[in-house]
Amino acid sequence: MAHTPRPSAEPAPAKPTPDSTRRSEKSRRAIFDAALALVGEVGYPKTTIEGIAARAGVGKQTIYRWWSSKADVLLEAFIDLSAQAAEAADRSQVLGERAEYVIPDTGDLAADLKLVLRATVDELQNPKFEIPSRALAAEGVVNEALGVEFVTKLLEPQLQLYVKRLRSAQDKGDLRPDIDPRIALELFVSPLAQRWLQHTGPISYAYTDTLVDYALYGLAPRG
Amino acid sequence: MAHTPRPSAEPAPAKPTPDSTRRSEKSRRAIFDAALALVGEVGYPKTTIEGIAARAGVGKQTIYRWWSSKADVLLEAFIDLSAQAAEAADRSQVLGERAEYVIPDTGDLAADLKLVLRATVDELQNPKFEIPSRALAAEGVVNEALGVEFVTKLLEPQLQLYVKRLRSAQDKGDLRPDIDPRIALELFVSPLAQRWLQHTGPISYAYTDTLVDYALYGLAPRG
Repeated sequence: MAHTPRPSAEPAPAKPTPDSTRRSEKSRRAIFDAALALVGEVGYPKTTIEGIAARAGVGKQTIYRWWSSKADVLLEAFIDLSAQAAEAADRSQVLGERAEYVIPDTGDLAADLKLVLRATVDELQNPKFEIPSRALAAEGVVNEALGVEFVTKLLEPQLQLYVKRLRSAQDKGDLRPDIDPRIALELFVSPLAQRWLQHTGPISYAYTDTLVDYALYGLAPRG
Repeated sequence: MAHTPRPSAEPAPAKPTPDSTRRSEKSRRAIFDAALALVGEVGYPKTTIEGIAARAGVGKQTIYRWWSSKADVLLEAFIDLSAQAAEAADRSQVLGERAEYVIPDTGDLAADLKLVLRATVDELQNPKFEIPSRALAAEGVVNEALGVEFVTKLLEPQLQLYVKRLRSAQDKGDLRPDIDPRIALELFVSPLAQRWLQHTGPISYAYTDTLVDYALYGLAPRG
């Protein structure tokens, strides 16, 4: 293909028109939906870029233009799914371009933690979230590199919201000052995670409320 | 094949000679080792009775004589592995025919829990245990029937040892009487499980000691 050299080294990228932006957004959403559905059905090892493209009704090249691997596609699909859940729960704030979960800070630490954990119970039981999340979590158990990548980019930023809330509680004297918030949060987050992951028990609002009370006030007699 | 009917409905089973018992025990051990190695290498879905038999150097029929499925073989292999770990740690008692973990009851609840959790840290980091356990745990995340079976027969009996120890602490006034021990134990067991399963953080003695202290004495200021 002949082309006329231009004085500037690189052609300026075409500014997207409103129509092409809409088309891109529609493709992006179709790709995310396809990736999440596929990983839920066949598991992570058998999920392929080809399979995602076919299911989304786009060309493979459309996917490779935006992402370099199936792990990248899935990572963004999960981030997008969390953002949707946050918007649906109306407990989100816009950070950058994306809605994210926030943990309220009403001054009542127990109430704030219970509220967020109840929302997590709902999310864990929503099939749209549960099925692909289980497939990815299962792979992360045996595939350390993938597990660490998803934890670092997806789970840890959510856990840091608890760290922030617990630090605020420490500032106000509602939490012992010598407590490490990153470990403390695990006392109520990890039991829920293990029951969900390993089917070790039922999950409910009453259960997560109990976890918060036990964690804050301890198991040993007080005073 | 002709045979002479006998007055008793069933022939008495031949009493095993010391030699045949030794041979059986050797085969049983070879089958367990093969099953654990194979599931660690290829995962649960690709582990087959044929594959276990070939690796153990026994006939398929030898396996089917003792177990009805690969899940049954693996379940007993893991129970046997835990018993070996308990014997190695010299913190076992013989229950029935098998050595099992026990949780000491010295009267110092924190010290007893820390001791057992430190042993669990060692076990989780021992490749002989870790690799097959991860393969099985990963399958349990997406295969609820298998997950529930293994939890019921393998994990829950171990968790019940904590329930027993916590009940004893309640009797002595070392644990609040209104606490549900089955939920309480999750405050220190589940964080360790989640870090191990999901690679959400390092595990160490210092970490599990901290979990016990936080769980017993709570995160909120005391008194």
